Amino acid sequence: MQRPARHFQEELEALRQRLLAMGGLAEERVRLAVRGVAEREPDDLQAILEGDEPVNDLHIEVDDRCFKLLALHQPMAADLRIIVAAVKINTDLERVGDLAVNVAEAGQRYLQHPPVKPLLDIPRMGDIAQIMLRDALDAFVRRDVGLAEAVLARDDELDALKMQIFLELLTYMLQDPHTIEPALDLILISRHLERIGDHATNIAEDVIFMVSARDVRHQAVDPAPGPPRG
Amino acid sequence: MQRPARHFQEELEALRQRLLAMGGLAEERVRLAVRGVAEREPDDLQAILEGDEPVNDLHIEVDDRCFKLLALHQPMAADLRIIVAAVKINTDLERVGDLAVNVAEAGQRYLQHPPVKPLLDIPRMGDIAQIMLRDALDAFVRRDVGLAEAVLARDDELDALKMQIFLELLTYMLQDPHTIEPALDLILISRHLERIGDHATNIAEDVIFMVSARDVRHQAVDPAPGPPRG
Repeated sequence: MQRPARHFQEELEALRQRLLAMGGLAEERVRLAVRGVAEREPDDLQAILEGDEPVNDLHIEVDDRCFKLLALHQPMAADLRIIVAAVKINTDLERVGDLAVNVAEAGQRYLQHPPVKPLLDIPRMGDIAQIMLRDALDAFVRRDVGLAEAVLARDDELDALKMQIFLELLTYMLQDPHTIEPALDLILISRHLERIGDHATNIAEDVIFMVSARDVRHQAVDPAPGPPRG
Repeated sequence: MQRPARHFQEELEALRQRLLAMGGLAEERVRLAVRGVAEREPDDLQAILEGDEPVNDLHIEVDDRCFKLLALHQPMAADLRIIVAAVKINTDLERVGDLAVNVAEAGQRYLQHPPVKPLLDIPRMGDIAQIMLRDALDAFVRRDVGLAEAVLARDDELDALKMQIFLELLTYMLQDPHTIEPALDLILISRHLERIGDHATNIAEDVIFMVSARDVRHQAVDPAPGPPRG
Protein backbone atom coordinates (compact mmCIF):
# COMPACT_ATOMS: atom_id res chain seq x y z
CA MET A 1 0.00 0.00 0.00
CA GLN A 2 2.96 2.34 0.57
CA ARG A 3 3.50 4.35 -2.60
CA PRO A 4 6.67 5.96 -3.95
CA ALA A 5 7.49 9.33 -2.42
CA ARG A 6 7.90 10.96 -5.80
CA HIS A 7 4.40 10.00 -6.80
CA PHE A 8 3.16 11.49 -3.54
CA GLN A 9 5.00 14.77 -4.12
CA GLU A 10 3.52 15.00 -7.62
CA GLU A 11 0.05 14.44 -6.25
CA LEU A 12 0.65 17.02 -3.55
CA GLU A 13 1.77 19.53 -6.16
CA ALA A 14 -1.33 18.76 -8.23
CA LEU A 15 -3.45 19.39 -5.13
CA ARG A 16 -1.74 22.73 -4.60
CA GLN A 17 -2.35 23.71 -8.22
CA ARG A 18 -6.03 22.79 -8.10
CA LEU A 19 -6.47 24.70 -4.87
CA LEU A 20 -4.86 27.72 -6.50
CA ALA A 21 -7.12 27.34 -9.53
CA MET A 22 -10.08 27.31 -7.18
CA GLY A 23 -8.76 30.40 -5.40
CA GLY A 24 -8.32 32.19 -8.72
CA LEU A 25 -11.84 31.31 -9.74
CA ALA A 26 -13.35 32.41 -6.43
CA GLU A 27 -11.42 35.68 -6.56
CA GLU A 28 -12.55 36.36 -10.13
CA ARG A 29 -16.15 35.77 -9.17
CA VAL A 30 -15.90 38.24 -6.32
CA ARG A 31 -14.36 40.79 -8.68
CA LEU A 32 -17.08 40.32 -11.29
CA ALA A 33 -19.91 40.45 -8.74
CA VAL A 34 -18.66 43.70 -7.22
CA ARG A 35 -18.08 45.24 -10.64
CA GLY A 36 -21.60 44.22 -11.65
CA VAL A 37 -23.02 46.10 -8.67
CA ALA A 38 -20.75 49.15 -8.85
CA GLU A 39 -21.06 49.64 -12.61
CA ARG A 40 -24.66 48.50 -12.77
CA GLU A 41 -24.01 45.64 -15.17
CA PRO A 42 -26.81 43.08 -14.78
CA ASP A 43 -25.05 40.74 -17.24
CA ASP A 44 -22.08 40.42 -14.89
CA LEU A 45 -24.41 39.53 -12.05
CA GLN A 46 -26.32 37.02 -14.16
CA ALA A 47 -23.01 35.39 -15.12
CA ILE A 48 -22.19 34.93 -11.44
CA LEU A 49 -25.58 33.43 -10.66
CA GLU A 50 -25.28 30.97 -13.51
CA GLY A 51 -21.61 30.14 -13.10
CA ASP A 52 -21.37 28.48 -9.69
CA GLU A 53 -20.64 25.02 -11.05
CA PRO A 54 -16.87 25.24 -11.73
CA VAL A 55 -16.18 26.28 -8.12
CA ASN A 56 -18.43 23.54 -6.78
CA ASP A 57 -16.79 20.97 -9.03
CA LEU A 58 -13.35 22.07 -7.88
CA HIS A 59 -14.54 21.89 -4.28
CA ILE A 60 -15.45 18.23 -4.73
CA GLU A 61 -12.28 17.51 -6.70
CA VAL A 62 -9.95 19.09 -4.12
CA ASP A 63 -11.71 17.31 -1.26
CA ASP A 64 -11.34 14.10 -3.17
CA ARG A 65 -7.64 14.67 -3.78
CA CYS A 66 -7.05 15.41 -0.10
CA PHE A 67 -8.88 12.30 0.91
CA LYS A 68 -6.97 10.10 -1.53
CA LEU A 69 -3.65 11.54 -0.42
CA LEU A 70 -4.55 10.79 3.19
CA ALA A 71 -5.87 7.32 2.43
CA LEU A 72 -3.24 6.11 0.00
CA HIS A 73 -0.06 7.72 1.28
CA GLN A 74 -0.65 8.14 5.01
CA PRO A 75 1.51 11.26 5.11
CA MET A 76 3.26 12.38 8.27
CA ALA A 77 4.11 15.66 9.94
CA ALA A 78 4.60 18.53 7.48
CA ASP A 79 2.85 16.79 4.57
CA LEU A 80 -0.08 15.88 6.76
CA ARG A 81 -0.37 19.49 7.88
CA ILE A 82 -0.48 20.65 4.25
CA ILE A 83 -3.32 18.29 3.44
CA VAL A 84 -5.36 19.12 6.54
CA ALA A 85 -4.85 22.81 5.71
CA ALA A 86 -5.98 22.12 2.13
CA VAL A 87 -9.20 20.49 3.37
CA LYS A 88 -9.99 23.62 5.37
CA ILE A 89 -8.89 26.12 2.72
CA ASN A 90 -11.03 24.29 0.21
CA THR A 91 -14.09 24.77 2.42
CA ASP A 92 -13.32 28.46 2.78
CA LEU A 93 -12.94 28.95 -0.96
CA GLU A 94 -16.23 27.22 -1.66
CA ARG A 95 -17.94 29.61 0.77
CA VAL A 96 -16.28 32.54 -0.99
CA GLY A 97 -17.88 31.28 -4.19
CA ASP A 98 -21.25 31.17 -2.40
CA LEU A 99 -20.72 34.69 -1.11
CA ALA A 100 -20.05 35.94 -4.64
CA VAL A 101 -23.47 34.53 -5.48
CA ASN A 102 -24.96 36.32 -2.47
CA VAL A 103 -23.39 39.59 -3.64
CA ALA A 104 -24.84 39.05 -7.11
CA GLU A 105 -28.31 38.28 -5.73
CA ALA A 106 -28.36 41.40 -3.56
CA GLY A 107 -26.88 43.29 -6.52
CA GLN A 108 -29.73 42.24 -8.78
CA ARG A 109 -32.25 43.56 -6.28
CA TYR A 110 -30.18 46.73 -5.87
CA LEU A 111 -30.20 47.41 -9.61
CA GLN A 112 -33.99 47.48 -9.60
CA HIS A 113 -33.82 50.83 -7.80
CA PRO A 114 -32.16 54.13 -8.71
CA PRO A 115 -28.65 54.39 -7.26
CA VAL A 116 -28.61 55.47 -3.61
CA LYS A 117 -25.18 57.04 -3.95
CA PRO A 118 -22.00 56.68 -6.00
CA LEU A 119 -20.44 53.42 -4.88
CA LEU A 120 -16.86 53.91 -3.79
CA ASP A 121 -16.56 51.99 -0.53
CA ILE A 122 -18.14 48.78 -1.83
CA PRO A 123 -15.57 48.41 -4.66
CA ARG A 124 -12.90 49.32 -2.12
CA MET A 125 -14.09 46.50 0.13
CA GLY A 126 -14.15 44.17 -2.87
CA ASP A 127 -10.55 45.10 -3.72
CA ILE A 128 -9.35 44.49 -0.18
CA ALA A 129 -11.19 41.18 0.08
CA GLN A 130 -9.66 40.05 -3.22
CA ILE A 131 -6.16 41.06 -2.18
CA MET A 132 -6.60 39.27 1.15
CA LEU A 133 -7.67 36.12 -0.68
CA ARG A 134 -4.79 36.28 -3.12
CA ASP A 135 -2.22 36.96 -0.39
CA ALA A 136 -3.59 34.16 1.77
CA LEU A 137 -3.22 31.70 -1.10
CA ASP A 138 0.24 33.02 -1.97
CA ALA A 139 1.16 32.55 1.68
CA PHE A 140 -0.08 28.96 1.43
CA VAL A 141 2.01 28.20 -1.64
CA ARG A 142 5.13 29.97 -0.41
CA ARG A 143 4.67 28.85 3.21
CA ASP A 144 5.03 32.52 4.10
CA VAL A 145 3.95 33.19 7.69
CA GLY A 146 4.75 36.90 7.37
CA LEU A 147 2.40 37.29 4.43
CA ALA A 148 -0.29 35.30 6.25
CA GLU A 149 0.03 37.63 9.22
CA ALA A 150 -0.32 40.63 6.90
CA VAL A 151 -3.64 39.16 5.74
CA LEU A 152 -4.88 38.98 9.32
CA ALA A 153 -3.96 42.63 9.84
CA ARG A 154 -6.06 43.80 6.87
CA ASP A 155 -9.26 42.39 8.31
CA ASP A 156 -9.68 45.52 10.42
CA GLU A 157 -9.81 47.66 7.27
CA LEU A 158 -12.78 45.69 6.04
CA ASP A 159 -14.54 45.98 9.39
CA ALA A 160 -14.00 49.74 9.44
CA LEU A 161 -15.33 50.14 5.89
CA LYS A 162 -18.34 47.98 6.67
CA MET A 163 -19.16 50.17 9.67
CA GLN A 164 -18.66 53.36 7.67
CA ILE A 165 -20.95 52.09 4.90
CA PHE A 166 -23.55 51.12 7.45
CA LEU A 167 -23.60 54.51 9.18
CA GLU A 168 -23.70 56.41 5.91
CA LEU A 169 -26.55 54.33 4.53
CA LEU A 170 -28.45 54.60 7.77
CA THR A 171 -28.41 58.38 7.31
CA TYR A 172 -29.84 58.00 3.80
CA MET A 173 -32.55 55.64 5.03
CA LEU A 174 -33.59 57.95 7.84
CA GLN A 175 -33.82 60.92 5.47
CA ASP A 176 -35.60 59.20 2.61
CA PRO A 177 -37.65 56.00 2.95
CA HIS A 178 -37.28 55.37 -0.79
CA THR A 179 -33.67 54.47 -0.16
CA ILE A 180 -34.48 51.84 2.47
CA GLU A 181 -34.72 48.87 0.15
CA PRO A 182 -31.64 49.54 -1.99
CA ALA A 183 -29.64 50.67 1.05
CA LEU A 184 -30.47 47.38 2.78
CA ASP A 185 -29.02 45.50 -0.16
CA LEU A 186 -25.83 47.57 -0.04
CA ILE A 187 -25.52 46.83 3.67
CA LEU A 188 -25.90 43.13 2.93
CA ILE A 189 -23.31 43.32 0.15
CA SER A 190 -20.84 45.01 2.49
CA ARG A 191 -21.40 42.18 4.97
CA HIS A 192 -20.89 39.52 2.33
CA LEU A 193 -17.60 41.19 1.41
CA GLU A 194 -16.58 41.32 5.04
CA ARG A 195 -17.25 37.60 5.29
CA ILE A 196 -15.08 36.99 2.25
CA GLY A 197 -12.34 38.75 4.21
CA ASP A 198 -13.11 36.45 7.15
CA HIS A 199 -12.55 33.43 4.93
CA ALA A 200 -9.23 34.89 3.75
CA THR A 201 -8.38 35.30 7.42
CA ASN A 202 -9.26 31.66 8.08
CA ILE A 203 -6.98 30.61 5.24
CA ALA A 204 -4.15 32.76 6.61
CA GLU A 205 -4.62 31.17 10.04
CA ASP A 206 -4.45 27.72 8.50
CA VAL A 207 -1.22 28.67 6.74
CA ILE A 208 0.31 29.84 10.00
CA PHE A 209 -0.64 26.58 11.68
CA MET A 210 0.58 24.58 8.69
CA VAL A 211 4.01 26.23 8.76
CA SER A 212 4.62 26.74 12.47
CA ALA A 213 2.52 23.91 13.96
CA ARG A 214 3.72 24.24 17.50
CA ASP A 215 1.29 21.72 18.97
CA VAL A 216 2.13 19.11 16.46
CA ARG A 217 5.85 19.50 16.84
CA HIS A 218 5.46 19.14 20.55
CA GLN A 219 3.54 15.97 19.83
CA ALA A 220 6.28 14.64 17.54
CA VAL A 221 8.75 14.83 20.41
CA ASP A 222 6.41 13.10 22.82
CA PRO A 223 3.88 10.95 20.97
CA ALA A 224 1.96 9.92 24.12
CA PRO A 225 -1.37 11.75 24.04
CA GLY A 226 -1.02 14.55 26.57
CA PRO A 227 -3.83 16.44 28.27
CA PRO A 228 -5.96 18.42 25.83
CA ARG A 229 -4.87 21.98 25.21
CA GLY A 230 -6.89 24.70 26.88
CA MET B 1 4.75 3.87 14.99
CA GLN B 2 1.71 1.64 14.44
CA ARG B 3 -0.39 1.75 17.60
CA PRO B 4 -2.83 -0.81 18.99
CA ALA B 5 -6.28 -0.70 17.42
CA ARG B 6 -8.00 -0.55 20.78
CA HIS B 7 -6.11 2.57 21.74
CA PHE B 8 -7.17 4.12 18.44
CA GLN B 9 -10.84 3.27 18.98
CA GLU B 10 -10.69 4.82 22.44
CA GLU B 11 -9.16 7.98 21.05
CA LEU B 12 -11.78 8.09 18.30
CA GLU B 13 -14.52 7.76 20.88
CA ALA B 14 -12.95 10.57 22.92
CA LEU B 15 -12.91 12.72 19.77
CA ARG B 16 -16.58 12.00 19.21
CA GLN B 17 -17.40 12.95 22.79
CA ARG B 18 -15.48 16.22 22.62
CA LEU B 19 -17.15 17.11 19.35
CA LEU B 20 -20.52 16.45 20.96
CA ALA B 21 -19.55 18.58 23.95
CA MET B 22 -18.65 21.36 21.55
CA GLY B 23 -21.96 20.92 19.72
CA GLY B 24 -23.86 21.09 23.01
CA LEU B 25 -22.02 24.25 23.99
CA ALA B 26 -22.61 25.92 20.61
CA GLU B 27 -26.29 24.99 20.72
CA GLU B 28 -26.67 26.35 24.25
CA ARG B 29 -25.06 29.62 23.24
CA VAL B 30 -27.48 30.01 20.33
CA ARG B 31 -30.39 29.31 22.68
CA LEU B 32 -29.20 31.85 25.25
CA ALA B 33 -28.48 34.54 22.64
CA VAL B 34 -31.92 34.22 21.08
CA ARG B 35 -33.62 34.19 24.48
CA GLY B 36 -31.68 37.31 25.44
CA VAL B 37 -33.03 39.13 22.39
CA ALA B 38 -36.58 37.82 22.56
CA GLU B 39 -37.02 38.34 26.31
CA ARG B 40 -34.91 41.49 26.41
CA GLU B 41 -32.38 40.10 28.89
CA PRO B 42 -29.13 42.05 28.51
CA ASP B 43 -27.42 39.77 31.03
CA ASP B 44 -27.93 36.77 28.75
CA LEU B 45 -26.36 38.68 25.89
CA GLN B 46 -23.46 39.85 28.01
CA ALA B 47 -22.85 36.24 29.08
CA ILE B 48 -22.59 35.23 25.42
CA LEU B 49 -20.18 38.04 24.61
CA GLU B 50 -17.94 37.12 27.51
CA GLY B 51 -18.17 33.35 27.21
CA ASP B 52 -16.61 32.59 23.83
CA GLU B 53 -13.53 30.94 25.27
CA PRO B 54 -14.81 27.41 26.01
CA VAL B 55 -15.96 26.94 22.40
CA ASN B 56 -12.68 28.30 21.07
CA ASP B 57 -10.71 26.05 23.41
CA LEU B 58 -12.71 23.03 22.30
CA HIS B 59 -12.16 24.05 18.68
CA ILE B 60 -8.39 23.89 19.20
CA GLU B 61 -8.62 20.71 21.23
CA VAL B 62 -10.75 18.84 18.68
CA ASP B 63 -8.52 19.98 15.82
CA ASP B 64 -5.56 18.75 17.80
CA ARG B 65 -7.17 15.39 18.45
CA CYS B 66 -8.00 14.94 14.77
CA PHE B 67 -4.46 15.79 13.80
CA LYS B 68 -2.94 13.40 16.31
CA LEU B 69 -5.25 10.59 15.21
CA LEU B 70 -4.21 11.16 11.61
CA ALA B 71 -0.52 11.48 12.43
CA LEU B 72 -0.14 8.65 14.92
CA HIS B 73 -2.57 6.04 13.65
CA GLN B 74 -2.75 6.65 9.91
CA PRO B 75 -6.34 5.45 9.78
CA MET B 76 -7.87 4.01 6.63
CA ALA B 77 -11.24 4.09 4.91
CA ALA B 78 -14.16 4.47 7.32
CA ASP B 79 -12.05 5.72 10.24
CA LEU B 80 -10.31 8.24 8.01
CA ARG B 81 -13.68 9.51 6.83
CA ILE B 82 -14.82 9.99 10.42
CA ILE B 83 -11.75 12.08 11.23
CA VAL B 84 -11.93 14.21 8.09
CA ALA B 85 -15.63 14.77 8.85
CA ALA B 86 -14.69 15.74 12.41
CA VAL B 87 -12.22 18.35 11.15
CA LYS B 88 -14.96 19.94 9.08
CA ILE B 89 -17.70 19.65 11.69
CA ASN B 90 -15.38 21.25 14.21
CA THR B 91 -14.94 24.27 11.93
CA ASP B 92 -18.69 24.57 11.50
CA LEU B 93 -19.33 24.42 15.24
CA GLU B 94 -16.75 27.10 15.92
CA ARG B 95 -18.51 29.37 13.42
CA VAL B 96 -21.83 28.64 15.14
CA GLY B 97 -20.21 29.90 18.33
CA ASP B 98 -19.12 33.05 16.48
CA LEU B 99 -22.63 33.52 15.13
CA ALA B 100 -24.08 33.30 18.64
CA VAL B 101 -21.75 36.21 19.45
CA ASN B 102 -23.01 38.06 16.37
CA VAL B 103 -26.61 37.52 17.49
CA ALA B 104 -25.73 38.83 20.96
CA GLU B 105 -23.98 41.91 19.51
CA ALA B 106 -26.93 42.79 17.29
CA GLY B 107 -29.20 41.98 20.23
CA GLN B 108 -27.42 44.47 22.46
CA ARG B 109 -27.96 47.20 19.89
CA TYR B 110 -31.56 46.09 19.47
CA LEU B 111 -32.26 46.40 23.19
CA GLN B 112 -31.27 50.06 23.11
CA HIS B 113 -34.51 50.80 21.23
CA PRO B 114 -38.14 50.17 22.10
CA PRO B 115 -39.36 46.83 20.71
CA VAL B 116 -40.36 47.01 17.04
CA LYS B 117 -42.84 44.17 17.42
CA PRO B 118 -43.42 41.07 19.53
CA LEU B 119 -40.71 38.62 18.52
CA LEU B 120 -42.17 35.30 17.46
CA ASP B 121 -40.37 34.40 14.26
CA ILE B 122 -36.86 35.04 15.60
CA PRO B 123 -37.27 32.54 18.47
CA ARG B 124 -38.88 30.17 15.98
CA MET B 125 -35.80 30.47 13.76
CA GLY B 126 -33.60 29.93 16.80
CA ASP B 127 -35.51 26.76 17.72
CA ILE B 128 -35.23 25.36 14.20
CA ALA B 129 -31.53 26.17 13.98
CA GLN B 130 -30.91 24.46 17.33
CA ILE B 131 -32.87 21.37 16.33
CA MET B 132 -30.99 21.21 13.04
CA LEU B 133 -27.68 21.38 14.90
CA ARG B 134 -28.68 18.72 17.40
CA ASP B 135 -30.03 16.39 14.71
CA ALA B 136 -26.92 16.86 12.57
CA LEU B 137 -24.71 15.88 15.50
CA ASP B 138 -26.98 12.96 16.40
CA ALA B 139 -26.72 11.85 12.79
CA PHE B 140 -22.93 12.03 13.09
CA VAL B 141 -22.83 9.88 16.21
CA ARG B 142 -25.40 7.38 15.01
CA ARG B 143 -24.14 7.39 11.40
CA ASP B 144 -27.75 8.06 10.45
CA VAL B 145 -28.05 9.21 6.82
CA GLY B 146 -31.84 9.49 7.08
CA LEU B 147 -31.59 11.93 9.97
CA ALA B 148 -28.89 13.90 8.15
CA GLU B 149 -31.18 14.19 5.13
CA ALA B 150 -33.98 15.43 7.37
CA VAL B 151 -31.65 18.23 8.52
CA LEU B 152 -31.07 19.28 4.91
CA ALA B 153 -34.82 19.41 4.33
CA ARG B 154 -35.39 21.83 7.23
CA ASP B 155 -33.11 24.48 5.77
CA ASP B 156 -35.97 25.71 3.58
CA GLU B 157 -38.03 26.51 6.68
CA LEU B 158 -35.31 28.84 7.90
CA ASP B 159 -35.04 30.51 4.51
CA ALA B 160 -38.79 31.06 4.39
CA LEU B 161 -38.86 32.54 7.90
CA LYS B 162 -35.92 34.81 7.11
CA MET B 163 -37.73 36.14 4.04
CA GLN B 164 -40.98 36.60 5.98
CA ILE B 165 -39.15 38.52 8.74
CA PHE B 166 -37.44 40.68 6.17
CA LEU B 167 -40.66 41.65 4.37
CA GLU B 168 -42.50 42.34 7.60
CA LEU B 169 -39.72 44.53 8.98
CA LEU B 170 -39.40 46.36 5.69
CA THR B 171 -43.05 47.39 6.07
CA TYR B 172 -42.33 48.73 9.56
CA MET B 173 -39.30 50.64 8.34
CA LEU B 174 -41.16 52.22 5.45
CA GLN B 175 -43.98 53.32 7.77
CA ASP B 176 -41.88 54.62 10.63
CA PRO B 177 -38.21 55.66 10.31
CA HIS B 178 -37.76 55.22 14.08
CA THR B 179 -37.93 51.50 13.54
CA ILE B 180 -35.13 51.48 10.94
CA GLU B 181 -32.24 50.92 13.31
CA PRO B 182 -33.77 48.21 15.49
CA ALA B 183 -35.38 46.54 12.46
CA LEU B 184 -31.96 46.36 10.78
CA ASP B 185 -30.63 44.49 13.78
CA LEU B 186 -33.51 42.04 13.69
CA ILE B 187 -32.84 41.44 10.01
CA LEU B 188 -29.20 40.78 10.82
CA ILE B 189 -30.15 38.42 13.63
CA SER B 190 -32.43 36.46 11.30
CA ARG B 191 -29.52 36.14 8.87
CA HIS B 192 -27.17 34.96 11.58
CA LEU B 193 -29.70 32.29 12.53
CA GLU B 194 -30.08 31.27 8.92
CA ARG B 195 -26.31 30.86 8.74
CA ILE B 196 -26.37 28.66 11.82
CA GLY B 197 -28.81 26.49 9.89
CA ASP B 198 -26.34 26.51 6.97
CA HIS B 199 -23.64 25.17 9.27
CA ALA B 200 -26.00 22.43 10.49
CA THR B 201 -26.58 21.65 6.82
CA ASN B 202 -22.83 21.44 6.22
CA ILE B 203 -22.52 19.02 9.12
CA ALA B 204 -25.34 16.89 7.76
CA GLU B 205 -23.65 16.80 4.35
CA ASP B 206 -20.40 15.70 5.96
CA VAL B 207 -22.24 12.93 7.76
CA ILE B 208 -23.76 11.71 4.51
CA PHE B 209 -20.32 11.66 2.88
CA MET B 210 -18.81 9.98 5.92
CA VAL B 211 -21.35 7.17 5.90
CA SER B 212 -21.97 6.63 2.20
CA ALA B 213 -18.63 7.78 0.69
CA ARG B 214 -19.22 6.52 -2.81
CA ASP B 215 -16.06 8.04 -4.27
CA VAL B 216 -13.88 6.62 -1.62
CA ARG B 217 -15.30 3.15 -1.94
CA HIS B 218 -14.73 3.28 -5.63
CA GLN B 219 -11.18 4.32 -4.86
CA ALA B 220 -10.66 1.44 -2.43
CA VAL B 221 -11.40 -1.03 -5.22
CA ASP B 222 -9.00 0.68 -7.60
CA PRO B 223 -6.28 2.56 -5.71
CA ALA B 224 -4.72 4.12 -8.82
CA PRO B 225 -5.64 7.81 -8.81
CA GLY B 226 -8.37 8.18 -11.41
CA PRO B 227 -9.38 11.36 -13.21
CA PRO B 228 -10.72 14.02 -10.87
CA ARG B 229 -14.44 14.00 -10.27
CA GLY B 230 -16.50 16.64 -12.02
